[in-house]
Amino acid sequence: MNIDMIEAAAQRLSGHARQTPLLSSPFLDDIAGRRVLIKPECLQHTGSFKFRGGWSAVSALAPDLRARGVIAFSSGNHAQGVAYAAKLHGVPAVIIMPSDAPKLKIDNTRALGAEVVLYDRAGQDRDALGAQLSAERGLTLIKPFDEPQVIAGQGTTGLEIATQAAALGVTEADVLVCCGGGGLTSGIALALEAKAPGLRTRPCEPAGFDDVKRSLESGKIERNAQLSGSICDAIITPQPGDLTFPIMQRLCGPGLIVTEDDCLRAMALAFLRLKIVIEPGGAVALAAALFYPEQITGDAVIAVASGGNVDPAMFITALQTHAI
Amino acid sequence: MNIDMIEAAAQRLSGHARQTPLLSSPFLDDIAGRRVLIKPECLQHTGSFKFRGGWSAVSALAPDLRARGVIAFSSGNHAQGVAYAAKLHGVPAVIIMPSDAPKLKIDNTRALGAEVVLYDRAGQDRDALGAQLSAERGLTLIKPFDEPQVIAGQGTTGLEIATQAAALGVTEADVLVCCGGGGLTSGIALALEAKAPGLRTRPCEPAGFDDVKRSLESGKIERNAQLSGSICDAIITPQPGDLTFPIMQRLCGPGLIVTEDDCLRAMALAFLRLKIVIEPGGAVALAAALFYPEQITGDAVIAVASGGNVDPAMFITALQTHAI
Repeated sequence: MNIDMIEAAAQRLSGHARQTPLLSSPFLDDIAGRRVLIKPECLQHTGSFKFRGGWSAVSALAPDLRARGVIAFSSGNHAQGVAYAAKLHGVPAVIIMPSDAPKLKIDNTRALGAEVVLYDRAGQDRDALGAQLSAERGLTLIKPFDEPQVIAGQGTTGLEIATQAAALGVTEADVLVCCGGGGLTSGIALALEAKAPGLRTRPCEPAGFDDVKRSLESGKIERNAQLSGSICDAIITPQPGDLTFPIMQRLCGPGLIVTEDDCLRAMALAFLRLKIVIEPGGAVALAAALFYPEQITGDAVIAVASGGNVDPAMFITALQTHAI
Repeated sequence: MNIDMIEAAAQRLSGHARQTPLLSSPFLDDIAGRRVLIKPECLQHTGSFKFRGGWSAVSALAPDLRARGVIAFSSGNHAQGVAYAAKLHGVPAVIIMPSDAPKLKIDNTRALGAEVVLYDRAGQDRDALGAQLSAERGLTLIKPFDEPQVIAGQGTTGLEIATQAAALGVTEADVLVCCGGGGLTSGIALALEAKAPGLRTRPCEPAGFDDVKRSLESGKIERNAQLSGSICDAIITPQPGDLTFPIMQRLCGPGLIVTEDDCLRAMALAFLRLKIVIEPGGAVALAAALFYPEQITGDAVIAVASGGNVDPAMFITALQTHAI
């Protein structure tokens, strides 16, 4: 993994992925006690940064391999990102989802052109099913984060942050990133190392799912005790990736932890002050920027709002709790 | 009014107003039956396009005049746009609001640095109060739409649409604009006349407040029978402006009318598919693009989402009615 791969991904994404703006509000600056810049990847195609990695991976395949199609395991943002990237390339996508996944997510992934294959969590081996389908059809597996071209695609977010922050005069700041497996975090860290060395990447996680923070502290990969039960489901993974962890270890500052209620409050403030929709897992970094200022250094902070695929009922809860 | 004034305004706004992206979703394309591009001015500073006109007007003043400050009558988006533009210029702003304006709007306008002067709708003459304050302090009145530098500022939205649509290969399309007094609509129409003559501007209004549509049909300025009672309060004005109407008459296609329920549905779809927050008045053009396809020509349509300053309770209503 290096900056050349991220710049090559940026070339392939040009004109296909959306260049999201940097947003701000004087009201959020007041809360945080410093200038806050928000990178709203919720405005990316399919509502999250995952489209970048999906496009990067699909576009990097050799044409004959790509024509056979791709496969991914996901019930969330990665599924939609890969499905839409494949559709726009005109190649098949198979997404393997548990049969108890929310119907809306299944329908959305199908509507983005993918073939959804459901499996029974209790009775079926997901990986075996995927291996069988891949072998039969010659599909290429696109992993959600521990995959060089996926990391390169997510890293294009960091290239944009470097350019946009410099244009606003911000060259020294913490860059807070919602962190699951570390694909987005490590990609951004690599991009900033090369393009904006005064910007320091810091992973942000919900309390109880702080595997990356603990891994950075202990110097080895740590696991989460639990894998479900968080409203921040979009960024819950068992542990940091084998590829992403060494990058984060080399480049990232200490992790930041927020509560679920912090996320709901950040969602309400993003609604009121930025007019964007973010999901709980996509609000973790903004929550850290706003509510934990003593853990951040510098006159400015940059927070990535990584996704906006939130159920209306959850969004209503955030507004009723913190905006009314 | 001409394109040179709009391009001069764009120069003054450069680095101060936000260049909003063009958004899209395959789900919205399916509903509309054609490609839909959305210009989300809800992401502009202060949550609406009004910041453009405010900045344009304040920045166009001679320095000694500007230093004395500006004054505006508004309880809505114009108030916030002018207040923040003045604050960023470091000059005073006085905003005259009715004493029964929502407390949140008063507080927001004050927080943006303005001095809010309240008047009693029943017992006080608003214009006399404004004239007195202007005379005493040398404040310059910034009218909400019938003012050349305000129209020029709003027209910068059209310059961006011309460039961004061309980059996506769209050179022939209807451009639907949420229309109150016509500042945004006429500014965009002038910009597109010069920069993208295949793009035709069309004003969009809520049913019962269709003064611009009727004025375009009759060839003279028509008034609304009522001036309140719409959830689209941000774009309700008595009649088109003396400056804006001749421009719209020369350049705009027929008006489009939507219902309040159409607006709530468009708000819910913008939440689900674009991850942006729009207010009822800011959803009128998107609603027309999605739900009245038979009144639109061409393979693509562009809709301006003009603002996002919506009360949480109203937004919850939109989600509960159309997203759950």
